[in-house]
Parts: sequence; structure tokens; C-alpha cells
Amino acid sequence: MSQKTAITPTRKEDYPEWYQQVIKAADMAEHSPVRGCMVIKPWGYAIWENIQKHLDKKFKETGHENAYFPIFIPKSFLEKEAKHVDGFAKECAVVTHHRLEEGPDGKLVPAGELEEPLIVRPTSETIIGAMFEKWVESYRDLPILINQWANVVRWEMRTRLFLRTSEFLWQEGHTAHATKEEAQAETMQMLDIYEVFARDILAMPVIKGEKTATERFPGADNTYTIESLMQDNKALQAGTSHFLGQNFAKAQDISFVDQEGETQYAWTTSWGVSTRLIGGIIMTHSDDNGLVLPPKIAPIHVVIIPIFKTEEEKEQVLTFAKNLKGQLDEQQYNNQPLVTSIDTKDQTNGEKNWKHIKKGVPIRLEIGPRDIEKNSVFMARRDQEANQKTSVTTEEFISSVVRILDEIQETLYTRALVHTQNNSQHVETKEAFEQAFSTDDNPGYVSCFADDSEEYEDILKSLKASARCMPLSAQDERGTCIFTEKEDCRKILFARSY
Amino acid sequence: MSQKTAITPTRKEDYPEWYQQVIKAADMAEHSPVRGCMVIKPWGYAIWENIQKHLDKKFKETGHENAYFPIFIPKSFLEKEAKHVDGFAKECAVVTHHRLEEGPDGKLVPAGELEEPLIVRPTSETIIGAMFEKWVESYRDLPILINQWANVVRWEMRTRLFLRTSEFLWQEGHTAHATKEEAQAETMQMLDIYEVFARDILAMPVIKGEKTATERFPGADNTYTIESLMQDNKALQAGTSHFLGQNFAKAQDISFVDQEGETQYAWTTSWGVSTRLIGGIIMTHSDDNGLVLPPKIAPIHVVIIPIFKTEEEKEQVLTFAKNLKGQLDEQQYNNQPLVTSIDTKDQTNGEKNWKHIKKGVPIRLEIGPRDIEKNSVFMARRDQEANQKTSVTTEEFISSVVRILDEIQETLYTRALVHTQNNSQHVETKEAFEQAFSTDDNPGYVSCFADDSEEYEDILKSLKASARCMPLSAQDERGTCIFTEKEDCRKILFARSY
Repeated sequence: MSQKTAITPTRKEDYPEWYQQVIKAADMAEHSPVRGCMVIKPWGYAIWENIQKHLDKKFKETGHENAYFPIFIPKSFLEKEAKHVDGFAKECAVVTHHRLEEGPDGKLVPAGELEEPLIVRPTSETIIGAMFEKWVESYRDLPILINQWANVVRWEMRTRLFLRTSEFLWQEGHTAHATKEEAQAETMQMLDIYEVFARDILAMPVIKGEKTATERFPGADNTYTIESLMQDNKALQAGTSHFLGQNFAKAQDISFVDQEGETQYAWTTSWGVSTRLIGGIIMTHSDDNGLVLPPKIAPIHVVIIPIFKTEEEKEQVLTFAKNLKGQLDEQQYNNQPLVTSIDTKDQTNGEKNWKHIKKGVPIRLEIGPRDIEKNSVFMARRDQEANQKTSVTTEEFISSVVRILDEIQETLYTRALVHTQNNSQHVETKEAFEQAFSTDDNPGYVSCFADDSEEYEDILKSLKASARCMPLSAQDERGTCIFTEKEDCRKILFARSY
Repeated sequence: MSQKTAITPTRKEDYPEWYQQVIKAADMAEHSPVRGCMVIKPWGYAIWENIQKHLDKKFKETGHENAYFPIFIPKSFLEKEAKHVDGFAKECAVVTHHRLEEGPDGKLVPAGELEEPLIVRPTSETIIGAMFEKWVESYRDLPILINQWANVVRWEMRTRLFLRTSEFLWQEGHTAHATKEEAQAETMQMLDIYEVFARDILAMPVIKGEKTATERFPGADNTYTIESLMQDNKALQAGTSHFLGQNFAKAQDISFVDQEGETQYAWTTSWGVSTRLIGGIIMTHSDDNGLVLPPKIAPIHVVIIPIFKTEEEKEQVLTFAKNLKGQLDEQQYNNQPLVTSIDTKDQTNGEKNWKHIKKGVPIRLEIGPRDIEKNSVFMARRDQEANQKTSVTTEEFISSVVRILDEIQETLYTRALVHTQNNSQHVETKEAFEQAFSTDDNPGYVSCFADDSEEYEDILKSLKASARCMPLSAQDERGTCIFTEKEDCRKILFARSY
């Protein structure tokens, strides 16, 4: 079984290196000369644009409006919420000067020192909160439902493309409400939107849950998460929604006069997903031949590779291909235009074929003179073996392309779901827990009843495991903590993680 | 004629303050607590989203792909192109540290000093060029056609919302080509796209031209611009397209092996428009009652104000309004969805009416029980007087709404064009030039034949005038410079400017 794969090494041989090589082979992104920052190349960015398109629609349908806030946060703003600054001060880009001037040795040096240093936003609760404070006076001004698409910076020492970079792109929702109930409902609504998006568009099965105290967003009362299990059985936190209670409202004086004339603090939420999702897509679906994209997020659905030898054949084949593309262009897939591309680059057929395999295009069509004679196309699907190709008539392909894309989407989701189910276990004892995490092989999800405390943090650390969340599906179950033997504890999902 | 206006002061009384008040009344943006940075509020941001939508489509149609590059530029990168660093070093945000630590007095101070300071990008030629250097090896790798939607920072001491802020949003196109001709064609193609967009979508008449040497982008061989005349007769540079020659390619070693096997430097271009365009829209069309939006860029085309007294009337009117909105929602305007909004806020009819006037919504409809009886709506257009309202049958409105929007668009363009034409003059002598700029009233565009030199810079400075461009429409005309008497000079357009 030493079949040659397009990606070296394979997942089994070296998963982290395989991940880097998939990104390189698909031409999605690369490290930049700026420490920790990545360049997102067109194929990677097109996936981000599709993520934006889908989510932005959902945000607007649920009453949110986009706005834009400054990239800089004065140091004093960050300091207003004590836990918040603790969480972000350790890794932030600090602007201290506002020009460069020629120094004594003729080289440019920072000049024009700022009175107060500015932080490049790691997240925008404090700067947006400062505006909410101005905007909110009466209950009539609430709710405020804002979203921002932006870049943020968290100084990371160890970076990995898409998963952890010093600068990344994201959306951050920030809302303020008159009541606790309304803010809680908003927090859960956005978590649900993330879950449905991950499941239906990214074909990523996720587990919705509440973070334990130690894993909460700095300054939140509650953090909710969607967690997804990658093929190496590490969990990825794919999106979070925070119920901030009145913490930021009190720290920043976001108050309003209610209907009874009483002054109250508002209740706020924040929620976000980032370019990290692209890392999640890669690690959920890709194989040893490269990227595999769920059709609903793929920038191109169908690629046509024209096969010809002579100039005459070339003209004939291109005419046929353009005609076919024209007919496909009239169709919609998942309420978006169906996107077909004809690859006319100066490359061999084999090079083209493997290029699109590595880029994860869902459907590849080869069309040569013999296919035209039969009015057919030679079709390959990215969810099947690379050499599995089927001849279908053009009419049949046109009428079934949407169904085939749906099938691929479904196949990818089911595969990921089965993988998750096959790598989830519930343990009843501390010994079984330790056994599960005893080797370098990641066990996947390991659930148990456990206290939400720091008491067994050392055990987790030694096993390189962490609490991913308290699954909402087991919200009402209670049991005895396998670590502390405390009773009446919730079920917690543990895993090794990104 | 002391008619009360919704905006105080009027344009005549105090144009700069009128501008600020229009933005405030339309709730488009405001100054943030961060020096020089603005907050773009939902109504302003929705206009930016529409600008993005239109331009992004044009960029993609002409073969460009979006990508994303780091926000930080190492100091040494900026220094590679001598003129470039001269142009940007004086006003840039410098990151010098990567964390905050508790200082001796318990307060947080910058810590973790960087070996090399990072500049928050003022523009991305140097960081993108560093990637082009890696990506380009052979002529087969060219052209590279990239666009980036991003935030940039230029430390401004005097800021004005949208027109000049320390941080702003923009798009920056960056391309590399094998030949000079191809790069020049790209430069002009993008200038044309900007011109057509300004004219057809923003209803802004612009003059296309080449910048004089002193007004060029730092590091460019040629800078082309679209200039637009505002209602106060100051010119606004609304977009630029730069032919960078081989300056950046040589500074950054962007070279390739051509078809003959020779190593050549590439030819590069860059081009951009920014949130400044929103300032241009405001100043081109708005009046003393507030913002006026060209329908093709307006986030909402039709707003319905339901008029009722009793609960019964409310239900009746809202049902009618929703039904009407449903029928309007089925229509398209300019190949985009026609957007109708029903204003159900807890405000008086008068408050709502003036709110939408101040926000510049193209068409306002009032619908009350009497209108319903007649199956009609009471319509007002933003390009007409505030109290000019017409009763039209619902059917008539539905069938003519697109035509009315086109009429408004056309009216706004024609008004702006007439204003520009009425405030343009050609002068033959230095005396006439000085006469035109002799008062505090801005003369608008003043053209003359002039040398492209710094010799008469003092005269311009004393008149607060600047060379806007050498209009492409007069590219072949030549005459004697009115300042230096040098012969065979091109026609230059001068104005006071933003």
C-alpha cells in the first residue's frame, strides 16, 4: 500500500507538517517576513470571502448592523476591566511613537513619543464599550446590535498558518441590552448561528458547550463555544459567544434610564469567529492528496480541463467547454451562483489535474475530442479516489451537478461526524481518564463528570489535556467528579487541543 | 428667505461646520476617543459596503484577485525606496514593544522591546513587493493582479471625518507586469474604472489627469488621479492610480526570466480609493437639510412612514405597508435588490420624516388610512424640496419607482456637473490667475498652460492653490507657461483643495 500521495508527508507520518504542506500545495497562505504574520493568498482569501458572505447575511437577518471602530486602544481603556487586561497585556503590539526621524548615525529611529501608549486591538470590547457609553442614555437606545469585520493582533510566539498568527482576520459582534435575559438570548442565538454555519456550510460537526471557569474569555460571566474534532483527534475551538454580564458595562459606565426612570447598567455580549475556521476546514476534510473543500464554501465548484493536441482540437474543445460553462453559469447552488472555471494555463493535463486535486475543487471535468464526439465529459469528484473518473453525458452532468455537489457536501459531513463519534468516549473513573490520555496518540473527546475547578489542573497539564466545554446537550445531567469526588457535577468534555 | 433648515449652520454660513453637522445629523460617523481615529457608524459603513460591492465586482471582472498582507511593515522595508520612506516617515504609527508589564509604580508600561520597530502600514507597496519578489521567477508568473481591502494608518495632526483621519479604510491594488506597456495599460484601466464608478454610481463628475511632479505618490514614475469639485469649490482627490515604473522592482529585486532567458525587472502599479469617497459624496450632493445620497449608492432606496392614530389604524396601515414592501422587494434597481424599509420606531411622523431627509434616503412614502382608501401613497423625493409631496396610486408608484430613482440619480449628477462647469475657468496670464485666487472665496478649477516645475511654488502657496492635475482631455494641447514663460507646456488644472 505504498501508493504515492500528492502531499508528503502523509497525515499518519507527520500531521503538523502535512498541514503546512496542504496549505502550500493549495497555494492558500504563507508566512510573511513579518514575525508571526501571514499572507493570505487568493485561494485562501476567497474561502474567507465566502465565510464572510454567509455569516454577514445571517448577522443582518438577525438585526445586526456592521460598523467600524479604531484599530488602536489607549492603554487606559484596556486597564478598565481587570481580568480583561490580565488576559491581553502579555501579548500585544504597543505603539509608542508617531514618526521616524534620522538618528545620530543617519538611520531612522522612532520619534514623537505618545503621551499614552496605544495597543493594536486584540479585541474591541473596551473601545466599542467607550462608544456604547456615549450612545446609550435611555432604554429606547437599546438593544445596540453591532458587528465589525476587522484585523486584530495578539503577539504569538509560536505561530501556525490560520490556526495561530499574530495578526488575524475576524468578525466581532458587540451588543448591549436592557435585560439579562435578552443578553443571554443573544449569546445563545449567535452560538446557534455559528453551529448551523459550521454544520451546514463547512460540513464540520461541532459540539456546543459552555467553557469552564479557567477557559472563559477574560472579563466574561460565561463563554460558550463550538468545538470541532480534527482528524488528528485534537479539538479546535471554532467560535465563541460571550455573555459579559454587567462587567464591562460597570467598568465603562454603559448605563441607561429604564421605563420606570431608574438608572441601570446595560448587559453586554460579544461573539466572534476568525480565519482560524479555514484551518478547521483544512484539518476536518483534507486527505493525503491535499485540500478537500465542502462545495458550499468552495470558491470554484467545477473546473474544466480541456484536453487537446492540435490547434484545431484546441479550438474545438475550448468552444465546447465555454458552451458548457455558459449552461452551468445559469444554475445556482445553495442560493449562490454555481462557479465553473476553465483551466487554460500553459501546463500539462496531469499538472492541471493534480493542481485542482490539491486545491480541493469539488468536481473536475476532463474534456477532449473523443468526449465531444460522444457529447460527454469525464468527471472526477474530490470526495472519491483521484483516479476514479466517470464518463457522463453533458446533459446528464448539467442536470445532476447540483445533486452531485450536495452529495459531496453530505459525504464530507458524514465522514467527519463518524470520525467524531468513533473518537468520543465517556469515562467513569480517574484511572480510565488517565488511561485514555496515556499515549502520544490523541484519544479524541473524553467526557466525564467533573467539578468546574482548578483542583485537577496539574493532572490535565501532565496529560496535555484541557477542558473543552460542558456540552449543552448534557446540561441537565449530574454526577460525581472523577477527580475531586465532589457530587452533583456537570459533564465536561476534555481533549488535547489547538 | 429665512426658511429654517434642518442643518445649522447652512453651507453659506460655515461650510466646514455644515459638513460636520450633516454627518452628525445622518448618524454616519463620529470622532473616537483615540486621537485622529473615527468610528464609522452603521449608516456610514453601509455606504462603504456598497462602494466595496461595486468596485470589487469591477476588480474581479478585470482579472484581479483579493488577498491579505500583514498590517506591520518592518522599518527596513520602508527604507528600501528612498522617496517612499521620505513620504511616509513623518507621520506613521511605530510599534516598538510586544507586551505590557507592571512598572515600579504598579502601572502597566511597554515591555518586550522589538529588535526592529514595525510601522503600521500607511500603504503596502513594500510588504507586498517583498512577497512579489518571492513569487515572481519567470515571465509565466506574470502578471500578478492583486487587490487588498484593508485599514491603513497615517498619523494626521488635523483630522476631518472621512476626509483626513489617522486610520482609514481603503482598497489598494498592486500589480506586477512583464512590460512597461502592460503596466501603463493597467494604470489607465484602473483610473478608468474609478472614473466610471464615480460618475455612474456616485453621480460625481470627475476630471481625469496626471499629477505634476511635486504631487506624485512617493516612489511613482507617474500618478494619475480623479479630481472632483465640491460645492465649496474646493477640489477633492477622489482616487489615484500609480505607474511605479521599475522603482520598487529594483529596490526590492522583483525580477524574472523573460522568454529569451534574460533576467528583467518587473514593472509595477498600485491604485486605491478610500473612505474619503464618502466625504466626497457628502460634499457633492448634500444640502442645508442634510445628506443627499445618489440612489445607486444609498443603503435604502425607499422608506415608508406609516401614519396612524389608533391601534386599529396602526394594524391596517402596517399591513398595507408590508404588502407594498413585499411588492417592491421583488424589483431590482441597477442589478441590485431594491431596498425598502418601514420605519416603525417610537417617534412622531415629523421626527421620522426629518430623520430620513437628514439621512438622504432617496424616496420617502407616507401612508395613512386616507391613502389606503384611495390605494395611494404620499411620495417625496430627496432631490426636491422637503415639503414637495405628491399623491400617487400604489400601482403607479410600483411601476415607476425604478424610473424615479434613475431620475434622482440623473438630477444629482447633472447638478454637480453644472456646478463644476460653472466654476471652471481657463486663464491666459499670471495676473488673471492671481485675480481668480485673490479672495477667500474659492474660484473652483482654474486651468492654464504651465511648466511642471517647482519654480512658482511660492505663488501657489501664497494663494493657497495647488496643481490638481494635467487633464488627460488636454493631453495634446501645448502653450506658454504663465508663470515661467517656458514654451511647449501642458495644461494644468489648479484649485484650492482638501
